[in-house]
Amino acid sequence: MLTNSNLPTFEGPVCPVPLIHNDVIVMGHGSGGRMTQELVDRVFKKHLSNPILGEANDFGSVPSISGRLAVSTDSHIITPLFFPGGDIGKLSVSGTVNDVAVSGAVPLYITAGFIIEEGFPVSDLEKIIISMAETAREAGVQLISGDTKVAERGKVDKLFINTTGLGWIPDNMQIGGQYAAPGDAGLISGTLGDHGIAVLAARGDLGFETGIQSDVAPLNHLIGAILSAAPHTHVLRDPTRGGLATTLNEIAVQSHTAIVLEEDKIPVRREVRSACDMLGFDPLYLANEGKMIVIVPEAEAGAALEAMLLHPLGQFAARIGTVQSTPHDRVLMQTPIGGSRILDVLAGEMLPRIC
Amino acid sequence: MLTNSNLPTFEGPVCPVPLIHNDVIVMGHGSGGRMTQELVDRVFKKHLSNPILGEANDFGSVPSISGRLAVSTDSHIITPLFFPGGDIGKLSVSGTVNDVAVSGAVPLYITAGFIIEEGFPVSDLEKIIISMAETAREAGVQLISGDTKVAERGKVDKLFINTTGLGWIPDNMQIGGQYAAPGDAGLISGTLGDHGIAVLAARGDLGFETGIQSDVAPLNHLIGAILSAAPHTHVLRDPTRGGLATTLNEIAVQSHTAIVLEEDKIPVRREVRSACDMLGFDPLYLANEGKMIVIVPEAEAGAALEAMLLHPLGQFAARIGTVQSTPHDRVLMQTPIGGSRILDVLAGEMLPRIC
Repeated sequence: MLTNSNLPTFEGPVCPVPLIHNDVIVMGHGSGGRMTQELVDRVFKKHLSNPILGEANDFGSVPSISGRLAVSTDSHIITPLFFPGGDIGKLSVSGTVNDVAVSGAVPLYITAGFIIEEGFPVSDLEKIIISMAETAREAGVQLISGDTKVAERGKVDKLFINTTGLGWIPDNMQIGGQYAAPGDAGLISGTLGDHGIAVLAARGDLGFETGIQSDVAPLNHLIGAILSAAPHTHVLRDPTRGGLATTLNEIAVQSHTAIVLEEDKIPVRREVRSACDMLGFDPLYLANEGKMIVIVPEAEAGAALEAMLLHPLGQFAARIGTVQSTPHDRVLMQTPIGGSRILDVLAGEMLPRIC
Repeated sequence: MLTNSNLPTFEGPVCPVPLIHNDVIVMGHGSGGRMTQELVDRVFKKHLSNPILGEANDFGSVPSISGRLAVSTDSHIITPLFFPGGDIGKLSVSGTVNDVAVSGAVPLYITAGFIIEEGFPVSDLEKIIISMAETAREAGVQLISGDTKVAERGKVDKLFINTTGLGWIPDNMQIGGQYAAPGDAGLISGTLGDHGIAVLAARGDLGFETGIQSDVAPLNHLIGAILSAAPHTHVLRDPTRGGLATTLNEIAVQSHTAIVLEEDKIPVRREVRSACDMLGFDPLYLANEGKMIVIVPEAEAGAALEAMLLHPLGQFAARIGTVQSTPHDRVLMQTPIGGSRILDVLAGEMLPRIC
């Protein structure tokens, strides 16, 4: 057995030199060793620290909780990483907070897995982390587990972030696509297609300037307001990839109902509509990252709409349709001149890497 | 209002043709629309189905739970995807199950986020999903939320998988790196470096053949056996990236203790040692994916070791060291001839993309 007396003594840190050189990520930052620790301490913990994360175990240990939980995971591969109205950091936290909150749950915790390309600027990573921290604060969630991997140059496109969220579902809360019922009203919390067009503009693919900002935002507080006003809400769902049309089709299939929309009630910004007209896109299939579909019994539809209109993230909310019993599993669009057409799901890919 | 009488009628599915052509992933599989649904139904749900996932909401809703929770996230970017003893599917489930189980928690649920390269063979994806399903069954965890993204060719290296795990921590369980205490015994559940060398061999980087298989495995049942035998276990930790040396250093820092290892007690396969000698690697810094460090009060050390030796995943377990009070925050290696040296953390990157 080694005794203390014959051990060397140590003065100061073993490795006093900074391990983040030249402001770029190198392979060693994904090693799990000292360079990873350095990156975690200097960039991640600096902005995302909390008592649970501070314990530095492989797991985050959550204080005692009792009840049903909602869990949702999402990987974010958006390009570009920064776009008008947000960035991949704000997107990754908002997207997962929203996916948890649509269960009627109170989002509490979030995890984040980063896959970073060798050579990625540490300063850009820090901007994104700050954005995640701000969004987490806005939503009221804590980051409790993180992971960092680095892939060689050319093996990952700059930065991918996976976020997984965990929320507590209050007793008696029963919200889900399967609960849409004939007679329900369908509402939307605001204008459609802003995120899709903002990202397209940031890619330089539009060929013209727009002032459109992405709507990316955590919607849990808006949802809280809706549920206070309309406690018997049947469905909440954020129309992200595939847009309003695809998301409503999922709900129609889950609930075995028909959802009938009134075309002239659907809020779309003039600039978004113009851009769509020129590019051949349909705003009903464009991704949104800060909008909520609400399907609610007729008796509470007015209260739900009022609650949205009073909230900063719901000021352009509108009632856009009704749930009917037939034709099962379908979404129909009623035009102002009295016609109707099937609104199908997105079959292929309109805009890749939008979230 | 549209009435049912003037609606068209529908017969059969709108899109009866299969959407997975030529056995390859295309961008549309990441759209969130019909092709994504098709991929999810034909590949993911076929093998990973369960009642929670079957609800098809954006969130998985977990039945009522009460107590503390352990949550852990990990992104897997290993190359190659298939290697002796496992694949990225088995790795992604095992790694996260193990990170949850080292808290003393019972792993219950897992989420999976897939980022797939355009052109990736669907048949390979299905093999990986089957492997995930088998590993989840072995570990006794359910997949409750999934996400699929597709990036253009050259923007992601074949397939990355993020997994996040959720476990229930029994009352009074207090396990973590901060609880290592002077006088404790340090045990390891088996041979070191097998995963690292197996992956290196699969890359063709060794220049010679080995029969080494990765040790990748879910260790929660082994941990259950250890905790039954040694209920006052202080620390459990799997020495993955950075290997035994780096992981023990983390524990020494967390607990402000010294961990003293006996070099000739550390189990390393002859073939692994030979490969390391030839390549200039140190097996103490190589990644393991099916090994557990156990730090336990001296009074329960024998029982913990016995429990491991009786378990198929612990048959080469050994007692390898002792915790002392000083020198704080250090790992020391005691050689058979009576010398000692500091065993530092991995500073840079020895083997990239090992997990």
